[in-house]
Amino acid sequence: MTLVSTLLVALALGCATSQPKTAADVVIVAGRVVTMDAKTAVLEPGAVAVAGTKIVAVGSPADVAASVDAKRTIDAPDSVLIPGLVNVHTHVPMTLFRGFTDGLSLEAWLQTKIFPAEKVGVTPESVRAGTRLGLAEMIRGGTTTYCDMYYFEDAVAEETKRAGVRGVLGETVIGFPVADAPDTDASLALTESFMKHWHDDPLIVAAVAPHSTYTVSADVLKKCRALANKYDAPLVTHFCETRAEVADVQKRFGKTPIAYAESLDLFSGRTVAAHVVHPTADEIAILAKRHVGVGHCPQSNMKLGSGAAPVPALLKAGIALGLGTDGAASNDDLDLFEEIDTAAKLQKLVALDPTAIDAKTVFSMATIGGARALGLDSKIGSIEVGKEADLVLVGGTRAGLVPRGDVWGFLAYIVKASDVQTVMVAGHILLERGVLTTIDESAAAREVTAWRAKIEAALPK
Amino acid sequence: MTLVSTLLVALALGCATSQPKTAADVVIVAGRVVTMDAKTAVLEPGAVAVAGTKIVAVGSPADVAASVDAKRTIDAPDSVLIPGLVNVHTHVPMTLFRGFTDGLSLEAWLQTKIFPAEKVGVTPESVRAGTRLGLAEMIRGGTTTYCDMYYFEDAVAEETKRAGVRGVLGETVIGFPVADAPDTDASLALTESFMKHWHDDPLIVAAVAPHSTYTVSADVLKKCRALANKYDAPLVTHFCETRAEVADVQKRFGKTPIAYAESLDLFSGRTVAAHVVHPTADEIAILAKRHVGVGHCPQSNMKLGSGAAPVPALLKAGIALGLGTDGAASNDDLDLFEEIDTAAKLQKLVALDPTAIDAKTVFSMATIGGARALGLDSKIGSIEVGKEADLVLVGGTRAGLVPRGDVWGFLAYIVKASDVQTVMVAGHILLERGVLTTIDESAAAREVTAWRAKIEAALPK
Repeated sequence: MTLVSTLLVALALGCATSQPKTAADVVIVAGRVVTMDAKTAVLEPGAVAVAGTKIVAVGSPADVAASVDAKRTIDAPDSVLIPGLVNVHTHVPMTLFRGFTDGLSLEAWLQTKIFPAEKVGVTPESVRAGTRLGLAEMIRGGTTTYCDMYYFEDAVAEETKRAGVRGVLGETVIGFPVADAPDTDASLALTESFMKHWHDDPLIVAAVAPHSTYTVSADVLKKCRALANKYDAPLVTHFCETRAEVADVQKRFGKTPIAYAESLDLFSGRTVAAHVVHPTADEIAILAKRHVGVGHCPQSNMKLGSGAAPVPALLKAGIALGLGTDGAASNDDLDLFEEIDTAAKLQKLVALDPTAIDAKTVFSMATIGGARALGLDSKIGSIEVGKEADLVLVGGTRAGLVPRGDVWGFLAYIVKASDVQTVMVAGHILLERGVLTTIDESAAAREVTAWRAKIEAALPK
Repeated sequence: MTLVSTLLVALALGCATSQPKTAADVVIVAGRVVTMDAKTAVLEPGAVAVAGTKIVAVGSPADVAASVDAKRTIDAPDSVLIPGLVNVHTHVPMTLFRGFTDGLSLEAWLQTKIFPAEKVGVTPESVRAGTRLGLAEMIRGGTTTYCDMYYFEDAVAEETKRAGVRGVLGETVIGFPVADAPDTDASLALTESFMKHWHDDPLIVAAVAPHSTYTVSADVLKKCRALANKYDAPLVTHFCETRAEVADVQKRFGKTPIAYAESLDLFSGRTVAAHVVHPTADEIAILAKRHVGVGHCPQSNMKLGSGAAPVPALLKAGIALGLGTDGAASNDDLDLFEEIDTAAKLQKLVALDPTAIDAKTVFSMATIGGARALGLDSKIGSIEVGKEADLVLVGGTRAGLVPRGDVWGFLAYIVKASDVQTVMVAGHILLERGVLTTIDESAAAREVTAWRAKIEAALPK
């Protein structure tokens, strides 16, 4: 050994022993850590250190122990640590309408059930109750970020922040009088004050949410885009959910919905499009070119008889694609693990080809794919140093979890929402050992039950 | 009031007060009792009394309390009591292969994965372990009766009886050497001794189980039928699972599978056909005329890219139609609540019509429909006096269960396997407050994990 190399070894040893450890609030040591980083690395076992709201170390348990000094360690040798799931499309207060009806088309369901019920039953208080209940369900199911559009969205945002969940939230703009606005001008004014209020919030991203091209005029759609761009905010909306919608827009405006929106320059800023069940090839190209994120909602699309989105084509076009539950009124739950399972099986069915999509791709949609769709992938969607600590432990001892097989199949087909053990958002634990830390679940259930009874009593017979 | 009517009233009052009460072991009082009787009556609230293995009273809590003297009462005011679910098609020991693979066609999956794995990994001991684990999962999910076909079915039957679950179980007969038989003659001999052994068992119905028309010769199919008829036993088999199967049988025998089987007189006795994804209209007519029961396996059919069975057409033809999970290797669970949810959504999707099927119809398939498909509807499938006490309580307080809405939608779309609280088969409680009473679940999990490792190590690379 030369003098130089001896010195270098001494220096290295010196560094290893004298380098100050990174301070962390908590280290989670799990049997497997599914990072969803660019290499979709899986650490087996792995450890993740969290300081404040952020991930400060990811590695083998030994490496993390050597470099991090943590106040608390969560040992989960039999569990899998995953990034928190991202629900790209829902209407969370619609837990008020869970199990509301079965066997109606989207159009009939909206016109005869949902719109009348919303007219009588949607108040800031009912929205708060429905949101709390939906947040409880989402946390229990491992969802840490969701994208919402509804009414009284300010109440949704307050409840979401209080619960410690991350949300991309938009006040709905729709072309008829609704519970919180007599017209679209009022909705736009509400939206602008909402955007100002929530600007720069660490958990809440305020969005502009025109309902769709078939319920909002061209003029108002343009105003929505301008408002979103003014605040550098995303615009979230529905597209091509049913064939009837596509035919309607084609008939009224001479173009299919996405092509029509493109002609209005609606995509001249960040956009999140829900459903996209029946796009043309040209429309897929528009979405790709305009970097529009898409929220695929397989169970809602099935239950309403809407169809199956062309997921392989959307992915092939390079579109940022996530999964959504849609509202509890058309699903009837907010369970992303079911959406993962269904999304995979649905594409295999539609193609009559079990190789049409694989478990890893679909799990990716529910995590980093959803984060990309929402434009949040620099902050969330994977377990990487510098990202927000939105983490979920899944596992347990029930028979249905054994044997686990390949980790992707395990996460896509075997794990259920009820196997979620611990949920953290921005470093805060929201669920631990089956207990919600930020929501009084039974109070929320009581309130929603009472609201539901009021709504049903007031509905036109 | 005349003297005669006065006397009659007095007699009636006398009877009401002096009539001895029916002795019962347990009365379950539930917020709702979903009977699945001929009127699909729902009692709200309701009570069910059980004596020995049977249901001895069903009615309002007050009526049952007045007429029954029970040793124990289970009070479940917030829960729904349903008939135990019936899984019409599975291969329970295949929990050994859960999560085994993703993205292979049925043919490739069988030839490159399942058959080789079965060759090295299927022993009486591994079958026992896999069965115990699968039974634990099924009990936790509210399944009280299942129809199985596998190898070492005698071991399956022993474990099933020990666990207290009801089974229609068949030793598989298939046209190549398998783990428990070098040829079909040996399989048939095994089957016959199996039939003799389990004849008249209160929980186990021994069946004859030729694998399919594409893996078993005409001669052996006829022998299977004769053997089944000799013991008045059902014959259970697979039919028209994939288009490739249909084309193969058509090419080899000049007929599509069900028509071919009919030409062999295979339906000249009770038959249970799994899958039936691609029947012709003529074949549906054959199934109806021959009173063949069908087990629809939506999730397996989706995952393997096989297709969607024509459920409305099968129901319209009057076919006894139940739901099955298929084995855990192609699903990857034994969760009938998921099959209910998926079966409904799948038909709505395929028809692009949300009215294609409703929640009540699909829940019926999972209970009385499955019982009919197995020829057991005089014993099980509904909550009626005289039937076996196969009962399941579902409910709980989690957010996702609120509000409940219509009871059929609640059972089809909202309740998950994890919401099963109490399970009783033939009057014996198999699950109570989350604890399995007849199976050591963690021991089963350890054994299956060890077997799986052995199997993977021994597989050809």
